[in-house]
Amino acid sequence: MQKLNIKLLEDERLDDLQRNGYHIIQNPNKFCFGIDAVLLSGYAKVKENEVAIDLGTGTGIIPILLEAKTCGKHFTGLEIQPESANMAARSVRYNQLEDKINIVEGDIKNASEIFGLSSFDVVTTNPPYMNDCHGLKNPELPKAIARHEVLCTLEDVIRESTRLLKSNGRLYMIHRPHRLVEIFETMRKYKLEPKRMKLVYPFVNKEPNMVLIEAIRGGRPMLKVESPLIVYKEKGIYTDEIYGF
Amino acid sequence: MQKLNIKLLEDERLDDLQRNGYHIIQNPNKFCFGIDAVLLSGYAKVKENEVAIDLGTGTGIIPILLEAKTCGKHFTGLEIQPESANMAARSVRYNQLEDKINIVEGDIKNASEIFGLSSFDVVTTNPPYMNDCHGLKNPELPKAIARHEVLCTLEDVIRESTRLLKSNGRLYMIHRPHRLVEIFETMRKYKLEPKRMKLVYPFVNKEPNMVLIEAIRGGRPMLKVESPLIVYKEKGIYTDEIYGF
Repeated sequence: MQKLNIKLLEDERLDDLQRNGYHIIQNPNKFCFGIDAVLLSGYAKVKENEVAIDLGTGTGIIPILLEAKTCGKHFTGLEIQPESANMAARSVRYNQLEDKINIVEGDIKNASEIFGLSSFDVVTTNPPYMNDCHGLKNPELPKAIARHEVLCTLEDVIRESTRLLKSNGRLYMIHRPHRLVEIFETMRKYKLEPKRMKLVYPFVNKEPNMVLIEAIRGGRPMLKVESPLIVYKEKGIYTDEIYGF
Repeated sequence: MQKLNIKLLEDERLDDLQRNGYHIIQNPNKFCFGIDAVLLSGYAKVKENEVAIDLGTGTGIIPILLEAKTCGKHFTGLEIQPESANMAARSVRYNQLEDKINIVEGDIKNASEIFGLSSFDVVTTNPPYMNDCHGLKNPELPKAIARHEVLCTLEDVIRESTRLLKSNGRLYMIHRPHRLVEIFETMRKYKLEPKRMKLVYPFVNKEPNMVLIEAIRGGRPMLKVESPLIVYKEKGIYTDEIYGF
């Protein structure tokens, strides 16, 4: 496929995603996607004819990877930061995915007002992990907003996810294990039942640093904890399983 | 130490625990302890001068192993089934541990009435895992009572644990991962904050079949998910870590 010429702004670069020839525009001085986005897009299932939304999409990495990895019908990315949303929209155009992916600038806290109740089969989210905003020096920086709960809390994300999902719709979230109790409690509060969980361990003898969760709106209690995902065989060498994501 | 002569009842046998020369009386036709008890007694911490109680102690395996593995001052085992409680008491006598371990026949549901509020530093429990009692053919059998919530529910165990624990006291529980959401939710309901969790995977590429949890009465939210505990290197061969338990 012939790619469009696209103008990169200062400090921006175009990175090859190694999937379907897709690329993404990123600014390494602001925020670049991490392995979290890759793992979440590999864990989430979007089936034929299903529509999905990514809450806090940043530069659009999740919808672009989901479009490559799943058979979903349509993907939406919601992002509050104008600069990131603009980069995401340009990446979508660059990959000629305007028919499949829509980037919307807006606030997660109002997501169900923007898109309407019960309007998606799938919600994905890689929300800010940290709830320690008080000590932040520059809470307005894109990196701070992406990593800390400056503009939205875990509860905001889960509440809006429930509202956006159809009955039996699925939420896929990646988060930090140390907040697992709060995540489960808040999901249940909003009738999202955690059904599947995979812990991500950097090495086989280390503590997990990420957790992948699938929750179902109105699902019945019964959690399937899956085999561990070990990221590295040894320093710098990924396990085979990672390449499957 | 000279062991006492002890009379074994029909079908009973005396098993060597490979710890301090301790033995345990078991009846293989009724119920024998499993790896769960070994893992729980290795996970639980009982410090000098602390007193601990094991809820649903069966043949007393947990208090006996805890006496061997920790520096705790005193251990109590509560068991509702007279036959199991009797075996446990005889094992305690056989090991000459009457000064350190007390076996009490009684119901978990009344534990805080029997022992009083805030009377222990540590509670351990390896409760029935299954909440599917309706289809049980012989719910009165010792094995059914040990494995299924015939005589007490998860909520009974957690509620009584909170009542028995001093402020900042610790509950150690082993359970099935598929009930993790309910476990966390019920612990929080009774002000027991899950602080530490270790998933037990039979093999590195398999789903976990057990979970070890430490919860603190009145603890602050923040869960430490620990490195995975892998039981087998290959079929029939334990990993080194298991020998540490």
